[in-house]
Amino acid sequence: MNICDLRMSLQVDTVGREMYQFISDLYPICRSITGNGFRETLHNIQRHMPLEIHEIATGSQVFDWTVPKEWNIRDAYVKNSRGERIIDFRKSNLHVVNYSVPIRKKMSLSELKEHLFTLPDHPDWIPYRTSYYKESWGFCLSHKQWSALEDEEYEVYIDASLENGHLTYGECYFQGNELNEVLISCHACHPSLCNDNLSGIALAVFLAKYLHSLPLRYSYRFLFIPGTIGSITWLCLNEHQVSKIKHGLVLANVGDSGSSTYKKSRRSDAEIDRAAIHVLKHCGEDYEIVDFSPYGYDERQFCSPAFNLPVGCLMRTPHGCFPEYHTSADNLDLVQPSYLANSFLKCLSVLSVLENNLTYINKNPKCEPQLGKRGLYRAIGGPEGDVDELAMLWVLNLSDGSHSLLDIATQSGYPFEMIQRAANVLQEHSLLKEQSL
Amino acid sequence: MNICDLRMSLQVDTVGREMYQFISDLYPICRSITGNGFRETLHNIQRHMPLEIHEIATGSQVFDWTVPKEWNIRDAYVKNSRGERIIDFRKSNLHVVNYSVPIRKKMSLSELKEHLFTLPDHPDWIPYRTSYYKESWGFCLSHKQWSALEDEEYEVYIDASLENGHLTYGECYFQGNELNEVLISCHACHPSLCNDNLSGIALAVFLAKYLHSLPLRYSYRFLFIPGTIGSITWLCLNEHQVSKIKHGLVLANVGDSGSSTYKKSRRSDAEIDRAAIHVLKHCGEDYEIVDFSPYGYDERQFCSPAFNLPVGCLMRTPHGCFPEYHTSADNLDLVQPSYLANSFLKCLSVLSVLENNLTYINKNPKCEPQLGKRGLYRAIGGPEGDVDELAMLWVLNLSDGSHSLLDIATQSGYPFEMIQRAANVLQEHSLLKEQSL
Amino acid sequence: MNICDLRMSLQVDTVGREMYQFISDLYPICRSITGNGFRETLHNIQRHMPLEIHEIATGSQVFDWTVPKEWNIRDAYVKNSRGERIIDFRKSNLHVVNYSVPIRKKMSLSELKEHLFTLPDHPDWIPYRTSYYKESWGFCLSHKQWSALEDEEYEVYIDASLENGHLTYGECYFQGNELNEVLISCHACHPSLCNDNLSGIALAVFLAKYLHSLPLRYSYRFLFIPGTIGSITWLCLNEHQVSKIKHGLVLANVGDSGSSTYKKSRRSDAEIDRAAIHVLKHCGEDYEIVDFSPYGYDERQFCSPAFNLPVGCLMRTPHGCFPEYHTSADNLDLVQPSYLANSFLKCLSVLSVLENNLTYINKNPKCEPQLGKRGLYRAIGGPEGDVDELAMLWVLNLSDGSHSLLDIATQSGYPFEMIQRAANVLQEHSLLKEQSL
Repeated sequence: MNICDLRMSLQVDTVGREMYQFISDLYPICRSITGNGFRETLHNIQRHMPLEIHEIATGSQVFDWTVPKEWNIRDAYVKNSRGERIIDFRKSNLHVVNYSVPIRKKMSLSELKEHLFTLPDHPDWIPYRTSYYKESWGFCLSHKQWSALEDEEYEVYIDASLENGHLTYGECYFQGNELNEVLISCHACHPSLCNDNLSGIALAVFLAKYLHSLPLRYSYRFLFIPGTIGSITWLCLNEHQVSKIKHGLVLANVGDSGSSTYKKSRRSDAEIDRAAIHVLKHCGEDYEIVDFSPYGYDERQFCSPAFNLPVGCLMRTPHGCFPEYHTSADNLDLVQPSYLANSFLKCLSVLSVLENNLTYINKNPKCEPQLGKRGLYRAIGGPEGDVDELAMLWVLNLSDGSHSLLDIATQSGYPFEMIQRAANVLQEHSLLKEQSL
Repeated sequence: MNICDLRMSLQVDTVGREMYQFISDLYPICRSITGNGFRETLHNIQRHMPLEIHEIATGSQVFDWTVPKEWNIRDAYVKNSRGERIIDFRKSNLHVVNYSVPIRKKMSLSELKEHLFTLPDHPDWIPYRTSYYKESWGFCLSHKQWSALEDEEYEVYIDASLENGHLTYGECYFQGNELNEVLISCHACHPSLCNDNLSGIALAVFLAKYLHSLPLRYSYRFLFIPGTIGSITWLCLNEHQVSKIKHGLVLANVGDSGSSTYKKSRRSDAEIDRAAIHVLKHCGEDYEIVDFSPYGYDERQFCSPAFNLPVGCLMRTPHGCFPEYHTSADNLDLVQPSYLANSFLKCLSVLSVLENNLTYINKNPKCEPQLGKRGLYRAIGGPEGDVDELAMLWVLNLSDGSHSLLDIATQSGYPFEMIQRAANVLQEHSLLKEQSL
Repeated sequence: MNICDLRMSLQVDTVGREMYQFISDLYPICRSITGNGFRETLHNIQRHMPLEIHEIATGSQVFDWTVPKEWNIRDAYVKNSRGERIIDFRKSNLHVVNYSVPIRKKMSLSELKEHLFTLPDHPDWIPYRTSYYKESWGFCLSHKQWSALEDEEYEVYIDASLENGHLTYGECYFQGNELNEVLISCHACHPSLCNDNLSGIALAVFLAKYLHSLPLRYSYRFLFIPGTIGSITWLCLNEHQVSKIKHGLVLANVGDSGSSTYKKSRRSDAEIDRAAIHVLKHCGEDYEIVDFSPYGYDERQFCSPAFNLPVGCLMRTPHGCFPEYHTSADNLDLVQPSYLANSFLKCLSVLSVLENNLTYINKNPKCEPQLGKRGLYRAIGGPEGDVDELAMLWVLNLSDGSHSLLDIATQSGYPFEMIQRAANVLQEHSLLKEQSL
């Protein structure tokens, strides 16, 4: 069974349900860019795939950055004068500004309000806020709840620690025929947010799980890292070997109902860009292609000028473009098994193009070879074209050493699989050989 | 008289009627990819232009192909139980599947039907079918006739021979100032089908007839060949000299009422591509430009990867895109003198561009030369522009050695002839010289 | 105060009124390509800016051309049989065909009419006609007046001289940090026509006036020349130093109500082309970009093939495209202070882009630098993007030595000023260095 067979035989519905269940399991954990929530998440992933867990000490220099203190939180609340927990971390980990320093203090409403964040336009939703690089504390709550706060004394309590420790990330590598690598990266630092980015984590995990046992051309590297500081740390530690990365995808927001979006790498016409665009163009659904920009997810770091890696980003609705983004409404209702499965299949299709995008040489380049005597041509000439025959003619005509199968698919307008099948048949009949052989 | 004078002085209506008459003469002949019908066609052509006839023996190896047996047919019919010729080759040579092996046999309707071909969507038309590379036999008939066949015994008779012999083709070469060649090729293997491709044959013949006596820059080579096997055979025999072909056109389907279509060469921006596109763009009629694809006519072979010749295809309605294609409805009503003449004129315009597409050097490249003192400028400056003066300014400005006249026409948006006239006037006034001189 | 500060602090309304007043002052003067009207115009300009006046003798060879005789006119009229000046040069200098030879003669209406020019489509307007390079004479008048001429004897008088003398032009050069130059050229040879080209003269004068005292990167050269013969003469005299011209603009028709039009240089993607297009694209108003063509104004000469200088043309409505063009209706009503000021501001913006279009190197190209610890990042991560922060990320990502700030502005879609500000901030924080340093 190879990657094409997998694509054909896959029980897509089952994969979608499994991904959704995995998201449901991880949803309650309070993750951050460091700390035990992140570790617990990696341990969950290890139940599905082999994963090496790396711990980098606080204070380590990683390029222009410093690995921050480790943050852990146990409990947090705001109590009113009657001692009721009116904001309660146990109800939603979004209630606490992520990376808040510990505090235990009584204060008036007006003092408290300087530390409260709401979304007036979505009065029922809790926003998601962070304060990674400035020591601070705060609570997030629905605007409706905020509006009902009375002018009394409140007790504020955050039982958190921000201390020397480690930054944690997970890495999985399995070797293919080549040492050239495909990098799959996702940020795993967000607390209870489903689309952003438990969906990306789930997609990476299930890709690894299914690809792991297949014979593959490329080696594969999966990263589960905290956003920004994680990719910076990984790039700093692995600077000597990034040249092996021939293609890469950052996965994020792949579970919502929006159409698929591919954000190009900084190079804009890398093979991963052309493969992803080809797959979306032929998927029969709406899709968006967006140019590279230096914000979004970790492609920012992979595509920084000194690295400029061929890494694009596969999403459904992009970051900041769905109203539930970075709010409590990015929950288990926003992502659905069918969208997750659809993203999985598209991602697999992209990888299948990369795996099979070889360049062939027509062994018979002077005029067409006689397909008929090899049983590759309809016997009675008539007006109906046999599409696979035309695909064979395209492959023969363009296999001059300067066109890969993806180039041929693009120029002919045929789906990659049809061109690949035609190439396989021609190779079986000794009409084609691989360029490198 | 040069090619421009010819274009201006041509009696276009007369040419159209002559081409139509020529098609009418050739229409009844039963051609195939080999055999006497093809020879008779070439003899007809010889009445209009010098033509060398080549005979290549059955069994000759031509690249991956073998020259097939020669097919000749004398008579064929299907008789019903009352001895009536209900399908009669003498009424239409399309009734017999082209290249059918000989047969004389009685059979039931059900056995017969395995060898009958019809067009249910066009119940009055006879389809055109071939079986060149698989020994087989069959009859084509209207679906209406097929539906009326009764369940009785039939006598099937095809008085044909499929034996060692020759593949025949016609070639005409006349030398111009340069040994660089323009190739004009058309397939001449179809029986009674007018648009595909008696029209292409007629266009090639009348081009040769009119160009033959003119002073020409390029040498010209005209090929009248059986489709596919003919171009493969010619390329195999002439492999050593194809590098002389600088421009080429395959002519097919040039007599129907559709708008002109130019299919680009595999190179996509060869001079022939730019010349043909320029002419169609300025013809004042609808037109289509289509990209190269490795199917259609003999451009498939000329543009195979090892040759990759700059050969495009000029048509009206492309192959397979008119309902009468490969049926008895591709008859003398489908092609008309006016469409043939129109195609002739466009083709002549394309050749005129190629013949005159020189690159000049402005001898006065520092600022504009003073056109006024040479009588090339309107005397009283006023608001009305003189278009030819602007054409002169374009030629002067862009004649820096890197722009041909066609480049200048394209960039300025002017018709080639206007740019050519301007260049001629400037050369007469010693303001321009040919780059190569 | 630098050019950016000037753009911000400028009293635009005042500049517009000053330009309009300047035009009003110059309007009555009868200019031509040579003579005292041209000199008087240059003396007027000298009241606003330093200007060197050059005099080139009649008969001097300038490339293919010869400096013509100097034309001066004192008076001209046509009197009817009652001795009334029915066409009177004192009422409008457009009444006399510019460069008319002297004449004093009585003649019949029919003889007179061979020398009269009108605009039948605009019966109230006087056309503007010239006869520079053919010795001739004539009068221009409204078609209404022409229609009322009676069949009587007329006295024709043109008190003009066409004698050996000089061609005059004005030049202003001031040196910047670099010897590389920006060329600003305008034709100053038209008599009482406001948009074409007192508007261009006024724009050049006020640019020079305001730029003169600023610290500038480039050196600036302003030319006030007669059309065609003036630029040819200047290029001939300065051929040895034109390679210093890195950017150039011809200014014409910049005072009418039409939208701004930029005509590209012959190179089509010179930095001046990209700067002008960028400014128009971001100006929030309609605009037109037109390709280079070898007619129009003096860009014809600057862009002749041997020079091919990066000189575009900034206009509002192009030459020949407004009905008042080259008529008495191109008067003080056609141009307005607000349009003049708008053109001034756009021109200043283009020059500001050129002055500031440096290429920087990201000193921290491996991943993003940590903006937060430098106070360049919002402290509490939330959904609202800070546009300037994004501009910084664009500058950092693309400052790899192959993208200038204008390239970055174009690729990011941000206005140049925002990218420039971001680069300045990054340089202040030692995150960026100039490429050349």
